[in-house]
Amino acid sequence: MENDMNPQRLQVEYPDLSENLSPGWIAGFVDGEGCFHIGINKNNEVRFGYQILPELTVVQHKRDISLLHRIRTYMKCGVVRSNHGDRWCWRVRNLKNLVEIILPFFERHPLRSLKRIEFMKFAKAVRIMEKGEHLNPEGFQKILKIAEGMNRQNQRKVRIKIESTLQ
Amino acid sequence: MENDMNPQRLQVEYPDLSENLSPGWIAGFVDGEGCFHIGINKNNEVRFGYQILPELTVVQHKRDISLLHRIRTYMKCGVVRSNHGDRWCWRVRNLKNLVEIILPFFERHPLRSLKRIEFMKFAKAVRIMEKGEHLNPEGFQKILKIAEGMNRQNQRKVRIKIESTLQ
Repeated sequence: MENDMNPQRLQVEYPDLSENLSPGWIAGFVDGEGCFHIGINKNNEVRFGYQILPELTVVQHKRDISLLHRIRTYMKCGVVRSNHGDRWCWRVRNLKNLVEIILPFFERHPLRSLKRIEFMKFAKAVRIMEKGEHLNPEGFQKILKIAEGMNRQNQRKVRIKIESTLQ
Repeated sequence: MENDMNPQRLQVEYPDLSENLSPGWIAGFVDGEGCFHIGINKNNEVRFGYQILPELTVVQHKRDISLLHRIRTYMKCGVVRSNHGDRWCWRVRNLKNLVEIILPFFERHPLRSLKRIEFMKFAKAVRIMEKGEHLNPEGFQKILKIAEGMNRQNQRKVRIKIESTLQ
């Protein structure tokens, strides 16, 4: 069926964007648009004064917010929320969801770019947290080292600060 | 097997990034990272003084150049070449390849974001060119209208210039 989206400008068949996503598509899309990140945030109420916050985010312009909701529905975890300005994101922070859904999914449907290395570091850190090892200084340091090798430059500075705290 | 990428910093299993790509992954990756574009370039040697240049590009940082080559190998078309600075791209411009490989691929493995609307406009323009209709004023205008509704703002200006040429 041919529908005009804007009959004065063009005639294209209007796509059905509600069709089911596939795991392959999600792997490819997250390979391009996703970010596996380990946040290290100052927080005096937790052990060692820093909170470790692993998260997967996929950021899109708000015009594609329904796609973020469909990813969330497919993956059965995370939240869709406002990011910056007119950008929204699907974000997974819950440790149980990361361990039970996100890690197995991207182990079964692997990323193909070098982002896979980020994912593997991320997975290693998340599993250290799952065992509660981040609550002892050795496990905490291990996660810091992993986070340091990941995508945000400024973590190096944070690490130096934390190390002086731990000594 | 566990290999250290950089034993002083982290220990992660080194991923095998040479495994086969899948069509689903490519659809998802292009949905995030790809650009379907119709260039309209001033060229006094072609009819109407403007060359129509449809192209699909996927741009990546040069560290992922091998991934671009793997996409090229999988899709059996296009070139991998330098883009801007430390960015490289896989690019398909050949009309026959666009018609016989790219369009059928993304019709079989559809994009899921609103980029699919760009793809459908792109496909429409490419098929007008395939029939040679861009060589008559009516077909040429049709493609201009499609290009105008696509992702580059400055085409509107180009169009106004072209329209004054055609009148």
